[in-house]
Amino acid sequence: MTLDEIVRHLDGLTKPPGSLGRLEELAARLCLIQQSLAPKTRPRRLVLFAADHGVVAEGVSAWPSEVTGLMVRNIVSGGAASSVLARSTDTDLVLVDVGVACEPLRPQPGYVMARVRPGTRNLAREPALTADEFDQAWEVGAAQARLAAADGMRVVAAGEMGIGNTTAAACLAVLLADVPVEHAVGRGAGADDATLARKRDVVGAATRRLRPVDAPTTKAAVAAVGGLEVAAMAGFYAAAAAAGLTIVLDGFIATSAALVAEALAPGTRSALIAAHRSAEPGHEPTLTALGLTPFLDTWQLRLGEGTGALLALPLLDAAAAIVRDMATFDQAGIQTT
Amino acid sequence: MTLDEIVRHLDGLTKPPGSLGRLEELAARLCLIQQSLAPKTRPRRLVLFAADHGVVAEGVSAWPSEVTGLMVRNIVSGGAASSVLARSTDTDLVLVDVGVACEPLRPQPGYVMARVRPGTRNLAREPALTADEFDQAWEVGAAQARLAAADGMRVVAAGEMGIGNTTAAACLAVLLADVPVEHAVGRGAGADDATLARKRDVVGAATRRLRPVDAPTTKAAVAAVGGLEVAAMAGFYAAAAAAGLTIVLDGFIATSAALVAEALAPGTRSALIAAHRSAEPGHEPTLTALGLTPFLDTWQLRLGEGTGALLALPLLDAAAAIVRDMATFDQAGIQTT
Repeated sequence: MTLDEIVRHLDGLTKPPGSLGRLEELAARLCLIQQSLAPKTRPRRLVLFAADHGVVAEGVSAWPSEVTGLMVRNIVSGGAASSVLARSTDTDLVLVDVGVACEPLRPQPGYVMARVRPGTRNLAREPALTADEFDQAWEVGAAQARLAAADGMRVVAAGEMGIGNTTAAACLAVLLADVPVEHAVGRGAGADDATLARKRDVVGAATRRLRPVDAPTTKAAVAAVGGLEVAAMAGFYAAAAAAGLTIVLDGFIATSAALVAEALAPGTRSALIAAHRSAEPGHEPTLTALGLTPFLDTWQLRLGEGTGALLALPLLDAAAAIVRDMATFDQAGIQTT
Repeated sequence: MTLDEIVRHLDGLTKPPGSLGRLEELAARLCLIQQSLAPKTRPRRLVLFAADHGVVAEGVSAWPSEVTGLMVRNIVSGGAASSVLARSTDTDLVLVDVGVACEPLRPQPGYVMARVRPGTRNLAREPALTADEFDQAWEVGAAQARLAAADGMRVVAAGEMGIGNTTAAACLAVLLADVPVEHAVGRGAGADDATLARKRDVVGAATRRLRPVDAPTTKAAVAAVGGLEVAAMAGFYAAAAAAGLTIVLDGFIATSAALVAEALAPGTRSALIAAHRSAEPGHEPTLTALGLTPFLDTWQLRLGEGTGALLALPLLDAAAAIVRDMATFDQAGIQTT
């Protein structure tokens, strides 16, 4: 099914052609991904990957690493923004601990313990992950995508929780999308000017180390500056796309993971729908690198946790309903010539 | 409850302050209107007012008047964009015929026959409505708002169907918000260049006739260029605001009706939430005149029927859920100093 065929169908529905604006664009994207004029947006699941980052030792974040574990508890117990928005949008929520550096929670529904290691190494001093650790984290994510497909999910999203992970994401934006360091680095969860300056230095040094003549393989490079949750999200996206799922992309960190997925599993991006444009400055150029245009483009979200993706889901519902349920001009007896 | 108090509550929730961007702005607006930190967005109802316009005889529309009646049938039978989006967003839909010029449908649920007259007179030649007709249409709308309140609705929206009504709305934008004619007049449901030129001439002439020295009363002026559905929407907004309901505003015609409501029942605007910014050029300045900032501001909707308001409802749900259900930093044991 081509885009032209989809647009012809949309233009035959009882509304002036194009008069639903970007809702029609979203509908067309859904139809194209699902190759259907009756796209499905339910059931759906957000898988939230959590991990810590050794680079927090460099003073690159407004929050200490302990907050990752506290927020994991908050998410699983239902009090976080992602928990609340998942309920509000009728979306399954699963939290996967792929490398948090604190005491695990007790086993409970919606909580998966799959730690590869308790946080990454400090990427400012040494490679954050080995290629083997990267592969293990990728596989944790890929397994979650296969599980979502087996459970009958039609739409999935990945979210993240990890103090320090905008530093990793900024490195990936520099490496994989050629974003200049000063554009790739933003304030994350609220860095002040001094923190921002340190973060720029760290990202600049780490990426310069990886970029010279003897270019490392992509996997080794992304392992050196990435995060466990970022690797897991990348594996999740690649496997979800391979399984034919529709993927709603969240913000800057999610998009950096999508860059990783596209680099290692080309074609993944064609299953992606960009939910929003983050207030984090590196987000726009990474979306562009993936050829994606966000829908909630002026909403200035910068929380992560999959919240942007969740917020876009009811818009997908509306887009799917339009294309699936509206009458045509013929059916309504309205002449259009 | 002041905006400061609401923002203080939002800043105590487990997210970096402001990190949910415009969702927090929407949440604050909801709280301010409802004077509550537990705002309600359900149950909710869209009341869709339909009527015809004598000015269509001037060749100002891409579609003939008959389409109003055909679309009324399509809306009531569930095939229109508004019908589909109302189902998708769990919203009651009532269609009120306040002046369509065709055979009525058979009586059925969700369809109210309340014709004041079968369409307006041609505003290019004579006053579209008398002040008495205007009052009758206003009261049809006001009665629907009181009924919605009695039925326990918390959020309401008004939509419209009426071939030719962007011409009436453009006249109101010129009269009540000082929008220049060339900015107030757009292509509506798809006018070509010749139709657009005629529409500009009609709006220019009609508003010039009403604006000179002996300024008519506001009501006589809006009656002279308004529409039956526009008057009904204005009455609906005024009565809904008086009844303490939260009102989600649709596009250009809805906003022209809100201008009428605010002119005749000052204070109505404080109950309004602007859903979107229409592709119709006159919408932005009329929103500005009401002091409103739209949320779906880049979506290029221009269908009417309440579709923009419906599309925004799940975003209201999300905003309400955030403010009502998220844990505070204290509850999550996270220190914020």
